[in-house]
Amino acid sequence: MKATVHVMLKTGVLDPQGEAVRHALGALGFDGVNGVRQGKVIELDLADGTSEADVTAMCEKLLANTVIESYRVEMG
Amino acid sequence: MKATVHVMLKTGVLDPQGEAVRHALGALGFDGVNGVRQGKVIELDLADGTSEADVTAMCEKLLANTVIESYRVEMG
Repeated sequence: MKATVHVMLKTGVLDPQGEAVRHALGALGFDGVNGVRQGKVIELDLADGTSEADVTAMCEKLLANTVIESYRVEMG
Repeated sequence: MKATVHVMLKTGVLDPQGEAVRHALGALGFDGVNGVRQGKVIELDLADGTSEADVTAMCEKLLANTVIESYRVEMG
């Protein structure tokens, strides 16, 4: 079974990587890009029977830094 | 308006970052993680009227390295 975890910086946390992308898009001539936030997506290939609670535990312990990042788990 | 771009390494391209995560999850006692692939998610805050074709052009020119990465655009 598959699970997908999205990890994004929390609102208000400075995102220099996203800001660099925004600036680069402007330099390439793409107008109208008001903001960019960059995060991570982690696709997990799991043994059958792994619960969403297990994946949440993985996020809390390793995949996300919950001080500055929020995460979202999608199963299946 | 918002757009979300997912960028993942193509199948068959070695993903050392994902492999490191898989190893670390095993070391933390999470069994049954058969594989991990890590990618990027880019959230764009766009001016109204920006089309999906514009976002695709951004992906081709900057956001994804299409030699080794595939991307998916979600509008709205």
